[in-house]
Amino acid sequence: MDNIKRVEPRTLSGFMELLPQDQIKFNEMLDKIKKTYELYGFLPQETPIIESSEVLLAKAGGETEKQIYSFKKGDKDLSLRFDLTVPLAKYVAEYYNDLTFPYRRYQVGKVFRGERAQKGRYREFYQCDIDIIGDGKLDIINDAEIPSIISTTFKNLGFTNFIIKINNRKVLNGLFDELNISEKMTDILIIIDKLEKIGMEAVKEELRKIDVKQENIEKIEEFLNISGTTDEKLDKLSKLGFKSEIFKEGLNELEEVVKYVRLFNVKEENFMIDLTIARGLDYYTGTVYETNLKGYESIGSICSGGRYENLAGYYTKKNLPGVGISIGFTRLFYNLKELGLLDDSKKSISKVSIVTMGVGLENAVKISNVLRDNNIPNEIYKEDTKIKAKLNYANNLEIPFVIIIGEEEVAKEKYTLKNMITGEQELLAIDEIVEKIK
Amino acid sequence: MDNIKRVEPRTLSGFMELLPQDQIKFNEMLDKIKKTYELYGFLPQETPIIESSEVLLAKAGGETEKQIYSFKKGDKDLSLRFDLTVPLAKYVAEYYNDLTFPYRRYQVGKVFRGERAQKGRYREFYQCDIDIIGDGKLDIINDAEIPSIISTTFKNLGFTNFIIKINNRKVLNGLFDELNISEKMTDILIIIDKLEKIGMEAVKEELRKIDVKQENIEKIEEFLNISGTTDEKLDKLSKLGFKSEIFKEGLNELEEVVKYVRLFNVKEENFMIDLTIARGLDYYTGTVYETNLKGYESIGSICSGGRYENLAGYYTKKNLPGVGISIGFTRLFYNLKELGLLDDSKKSISKVSIVTMGVGLENAVKISNVLRDNNIPNEIYKEDTKIKAKLNYANNLEIPFVIIIGEEEVAKEKYTLKNMITGEQELLAIDEIVEKIK
Repeated sequence: MDNIKRVEPRTLSGFMELLPQDQIKFNEMLDKIKKTYELYGFLPQETPIIESSEVLLAKAGGETEKQIYSFKKGDKDLSLRFDLTVPLAKYVAEYYNDLTFPYRRYQVGKVFRGERAQKGRYREFYQCDIDIIGDGKLDIINDAEIPSIISTTFKNLGFTNFIIKINNRKVLNGLFDELNISEKMTDILIIIDKLEKIGMEAVKEELRKIDVKQENIEKIEEFLNISGTTDEKLDKLSKLGFKSEIFKEGLNELEEVVKYVRLFNVKEENFMIDLTIARGLDYYTGTVYETNLKGYESIGSICSGGRYENLAGYYTKKNLPGVGISIGFTRLFYNLKELGLLDDSKKSISKVSIVTMGVGLENAVKISNVLRDNNIPNEIYKEDTKIKAKLNYANNLEIPFVIIIGEEEVAKEKYTLKNMITGEQELLAIDEIVEKIK
Repeated sequence: MDNIKRVEPRTLSGFMELLPQDQIKFNEMLDKIKKTYELYGFLPQETPIIESSEVLLAKAGGETEKQIYSFKKGDKDLSLRFDLTVPLAKYVAEYYNDLTFPYRRYQVGKVFRGERAQKGRYREFYQCDIDIIGDGKLDIINDAEIPSIISTTFKNLGFTNFIIKINNRKVLNGLFDELNISEKMTDILIIIDKLEKIGMEAVKEELRKIDVKQENIEKIEEFLNISGTTDEKLDKLSKLGFKSEIFKEGLNELEEVVKYVRLFNVKEENFMIDLTIARGLDYYTGTVYETNLKGYESIGSICSGGRYENLAGYYTKKNLPGVGISIGFTRLFYNLKELGLLDDSKKSISKVSIVTMGVGLENAVKISNVLRDNNIPNEIYKEDTKIKAKLNYANNLEIPFVIIIGEEEVAKEKYTLKNMITGEQELLAIDEIVEKIK
């Protein structure tokens, strides 16, 4: 083997790869998200990572398209999925006749974007999506259930200091309608989206640049500055006296959503109306959501989404409205780790490492089987090393218990159980060991 | 939306995409495999799907390389992983100093091979791998633990009719050594691998074609035909009286493995020595495994693997021997479905669908929260439809219980629990409902 040309083993930048301790935490959190989604009755979905470029890029354009990993294999143009929404649209259109609506599904999987490499940005990352898709229509109460799902998810992940910001695109569009500047809607929304990052003065400057009149800029500023409690905001919005139909519809939806969000047990401190949430680059048409960790706003939204009028228009004539959210999990995990907010308890898979001192392998196997039958992950240390190395192994892997088997133990059919945290040792029978560890 | 150009929604051939019922089964099985691997203390690992081509193809060549999805992004040559072993080798070499050895890890993830499309062959498929990697050496007892893991895994998946076939490459290589035909070893192994498919006469014909002498062909045939119980086979092998050192080493290892496999509680009916298992195309150097479902041998091995002398020679000078197995899960799932061997019980995520009859949404939300607090997945049906449609929804999704809330229920604070399988209905308080469903 030793005149072979070696390649330096390295992982591409922008691709997350974890050591075991972190991987255990990563998987635990991902499992909690999936379990929470299932507690709300969402069905699992899994679409391929590779799709035909024609299908995947039916709608895409601009910035997105440039980031997509596309390639040819034989005569086929292929692409890696860049989100889980386009594959969902394809899936629902393709299997429409086999699905039951409203179709509630979750998908947790990796997506791929060849973004410019920078800290905390990943080119391969997990998204955790849920969507509820209606056939022709979908009740507004679904929009109110979403914050409840976000809230339960982050609570199950161990967070209480989150705030779900809710807005409605129709309220914003209604404002532009009222001001007769609807033709500039998309540009204005994109500028408003930058508010948190660049501040009000810069937003106004940008609005000026796209020729929004000073008078309207002031009205937009006034609108975005509407403050107070949730109910005060709703009250101020209705007192604006706007005549725009789209505004009235949006306000009505926002009121409904707030009413039912409360019914769905989301605490007052965990949600708010935020009229500056626009999500201008997305395809949302009604309710929109962003979620921040209070005190850590700089990491941006940790869960976003909204209502869209028609999911799969590029694939089918069926009208399929929906509402959904996405957690960009890889980035969230990275940020939590950087901020020191990850669960810092020691993690292990094995709860017990069984070591033999020259004798007792048969006993070790028996104990291992009994522990496994009791659903206790464990392993037998099999290498011929000194006891110190055997204990170090357990220590390194944060395994909380070691069972030591020597001649005395084999003779007595009782085994030394060592608690690796306290250092305590006891001589116990198998069933006592099981009891102790459980 | 209606003058847009539509694309036909379709999934590429060779890519699995399931409807919800099957996806639930798929995920349940995959979870059982992961849980079993963890019960044996294997650490989770996750490597990127995209790697640098230089790293991924350090060793690859021939058939494999042709199947790999490779592409350029910017000035980077990238490839999709085609197995989980090469990424493991890279990972162990890259993080050698951070890992504790023996490093026991599992990885469950998708790999990609642009194979010729044919029934039951996938281009994107799950592999479920475990490997134990030693630092410099690794005890033979690890080779005996592997069949125990295979056995527990398939038992946990609901199978008892499997047979793990065990051989040792050194025993085969020792035979060729004894016959002085070691220089043709690789070619002969590849021919022997075809035995089950093409039969002994065709194997002999192929051996003749590569100029193995008639006398040696007969000895190979005699060897491959060694029959009897496991102990009889071992006995016959030792009585051959071969002087080849490599043969003696292999036979000794095989004897050790059989001894400890029994200790590890693998039932006699679930394992055997099979001297025809060669795995000639792989990099194995000692023990090799294949697993068949008895009566369904035509689907091929459902779990294979073996011992290798050095995992990461293309990345590091460290000597890292290992032993591991892989389940090609996507193909296994496909075959089990085709053969009607999948668990045929009805599956649902939600255990309860809560429907309201114009009133009681507040009660519905309360019930939903209580059920969720009791870990019972449930959902509220929110669309404004007739009761029949609401019950059909539950029926279609195989949801076993429906809670119906009308005026009477709201007044009494008791709710109608309908068992969707028996049709039975009862008026119950929330805590009685929880009790009933649990």
